[in-house]
Order: sequence, then C-alpha cells, then structure tokens
Amino acid sequence: MWTQHELTLSPMRRGFHLITREVVAAMPELASIRTGLLHVFIQHTSASLTLNENASPDVRRDFERYFNHAVPDAWADFEHTQEGPDDMAAHIKASLLGPSLTLPVRAGKLALGTWQGIYLCEHRDQGGSRRLVLTLQGE
Amino acid sequence: MWTQHELTLSPMRRGFHLITREVVAAMPELASIRTGLLHVFIQHTSASLTLNENASPDVRRDFERYFNHAVPDAWADFEHTQEGPDDMAAHIKASLLGPSLTLPVRAGKLALGTWQGIYLCEHRDQGGSRRLVLTLQGE
Amino acid sequence: MWTQHELTLSPMRRGFHLITREVVAAMPELASIRTGLLHVFIQHTSASLTLNENASPDVRRDFERYFNHAVPDAWADFEHTQEGPDDMAAHIKASLLGPSLTLPVRAGKLALGTWQGIYLCEHRDQGGSRRLVLTLQGE
Repeated sequence: MWTQHELTLSPMRRGFHLITREVVAAMPELASIRTGLLHVFIQHTSASLTLNENASPDVRRDFERYFNHAVPDAWADFEHTQEGPDDMAAHIKASLLGPSLTLPVRAGKLALGTWQGIYLCEHRDQGGSRRLVLTLQGE
Repeated sequence: MWTQHELTLSPMRRGFHLITREVVAAMPELASIRTGLLHVFIQHTSASLTLNENASPDVRRDFERYFNHAVPDAWADFEHTQEGPDDMAAHIKASLLGPSLTLPVRAGKLALGTWQGIYLCEHRDQGGSRRLVLTLQGE
Repeated sequence: MWTQHELTLSPMRRGFHLITREVVAAMPELASIRTGLLHVFIQHTSASLTLNENASPDVRRDFERYFNHAVPDAWADFEHTQEGPDDMAAHIKASLLGPSLTLPVRAGKLALGTWQGIYLCEHRDQGGSRRLVLTLQGE
C-alpha cells in the first residue's frame, strides 16, 4: 500500500520547530498500517528536517545557537552572497541536517522513542512557507 | 514482504562502535530477499547511526576526537545544561550524524561497499542500552 | 515493483558535483512509477551524497570551502594518517553528509523542489570512480 500527500507548512521564524503533530495529522492512513515506513521530505535547500528531543524548548534554542556558530552567516570565505547573508549558511546547514527522515511504522503509529520529535529546521530569516512530501508504504 | 524487529544493544562506552554483525544477525530474513532495503533506526536522541570505515579502530577513535572538538561538552552558549555537560552536545551530534540508515539489499545480503560498516555512535558518558528498530522490505 | 541498478561514475575532482541527470538516466523504470521512492546509495566511505542548490556553481564551491574549513586535512589530532592527509577528513565529511538519499517519486518523476539537485561529494584528491546502488520501488 502506497500513499503520498503534500503538506504545506505556514511560515515559521528562523530556528528549530516541532512538527510531529502536523506530519501525523497530514497522513491519516498511518492508522491502517501494521508494519511500514513513513518518508518525510522537504522540497527546499535552505530548510531541513531532523529528529531530536521533543520536550524542552531550550534544546531547540541551543540547536539554533550551535548551528549559527558552526556555520556563520556571511562567512568571509563565501562566494555565493547575492541572496543575503543568511542564504549560503542556510544551504550548508540544510545539508548537514538533511532533507528527509524515514521513520518506522508499527501498529498504526510512528515507532519513535519517547523523546523523539520531528523538527522543521528553518535556516532563513524569511523562509516563507515550506512544502513537504509525505510518502507512506506498508502492509 | 515486510519484517520488523527490535534490537536492544548492551550499553557501550562513549565513542563509535561497529555493529554490522549484530544488525545482520537480528534480521535472519535478509537471506530470503532478492532485492530490497533494510532500514535501521535508533529510538534515542543522544546516540546515532552512521556508515563508515570498518577496518581500522583508529578511524573510530578519530571520529570521537573530531566530534568532541566540533561540539564541545558544556559549550558556554548552551542553555540546556540540567542533564549534565555531555547531554546537549550529544543531542547536536545525534542530529549531525542522523538517527537512521537505509541500506540496499541484493541477493540475500546488504549491498555495502568493501569498507563500509555500521557504527553505533554513543554520545553520552552513560548512555545505557540503546534500542534499534529494524525494518526490512523487498521481494 | 522493485528495480535495482548499479551506476559507476567516472572519476571526479575533489569537490561537489551535480549528478541528477546521471542518476535519472540510469533508472529508466522511473517513468512507470506513479507513487514510490528512489534510494540512491554510495558504496564508499570517503565520498558522500547530498541534495542542494542546482543552479549556481558558486554554491558548490562554497560547500568545498566550508567543509575544508570545518574538517581540515591533516588535522593535528588525527591518529589515522597513513593513507594521506585528505583521508581521515574525507571519512568525517562522508558521515556528516551521509551515504544515501531517499527521494519521493510521483507520476514517473522525482518529486524534487525546483532548486534541488543531487550532489556527488568527492572528499578525496584522487577518489577514482565511485559506485552507486540505485533501488526503486513503487506502484
């Protein structure tokens, strides 16, 4: 069984945001899968997806602090600068974190650990709305 | 054909550890798949999975050295510090390396390169046992 | 429906290279898939795959600059040095970016965003030819 949906997220401010609830709500067919996989994909190159701690907002703030430090806006050696000081750094962060997640499905639910949540990582100051493609398969 | 198993790994010390043998042993159904994919997923946010060189233990020690340098324990700007000096760094490392691997299966075996092995990346000093979900599909 | 092909890429110089066209050409069965996933896997530990901006060559040059800065060749703390100054750095970069991509397929095509292209990330000075395993599934 294959199902595919598009999910458009409203614009979020730069930073790391929990979107587990939105993803699950956009794929009601999850409930009918005994064993399977859910693939979550972002169709952009300056935002990304990751899985991390779903409880403390300070963890998500620390992600933003760390990645701004590791990949500075307007880094002196960047050549690609015409789209703003946050653009090239956003591309690098997007590849460090990655454009997709593949998540196990068991008994109609995502088989995540207790503390795992899906993060939308918005790396631009004005990223606008972001489009995800969700692909579910299983039996 | 879909198969899913849970695999609980005994506690490992902080660092990078080869677990290819454990993963393959936990999925005997691999042998019956002509073409497929094996998905390996870790249900934690302070340990991760990656694929890298399977021969030299010094490569795995260099991974530990590099990631400790790139994401220092108790980094001065971390706000999330109440769970110990290694906790927030572990969350960041986990997202840099990622929570899952998807591996091609061919003729009853993982179609890995000669030098590729699965690493369990333990980012905490006392991570305890770690739980993996293995999902195999194919024909 | 499952299809698997091997794709051997000619040697590329160290850096980031667009290979979307080669990957699609190596999997003609894509055209017959309504809904599915394409898995692209590299069988090496010193080269990697990522998805990023497909238009400006300066973005790919900035990737090379950034990763050389973040993971320096011959970093003083590396113990695994017998295979050359670029070897251990290449292993780390390969794990930061990852060995595979899973891409949604819709109506016979990759459902990528407008600006997304597949990068072969060659982290070695003389990497030689690189082997990919492409696995397509869908209906």
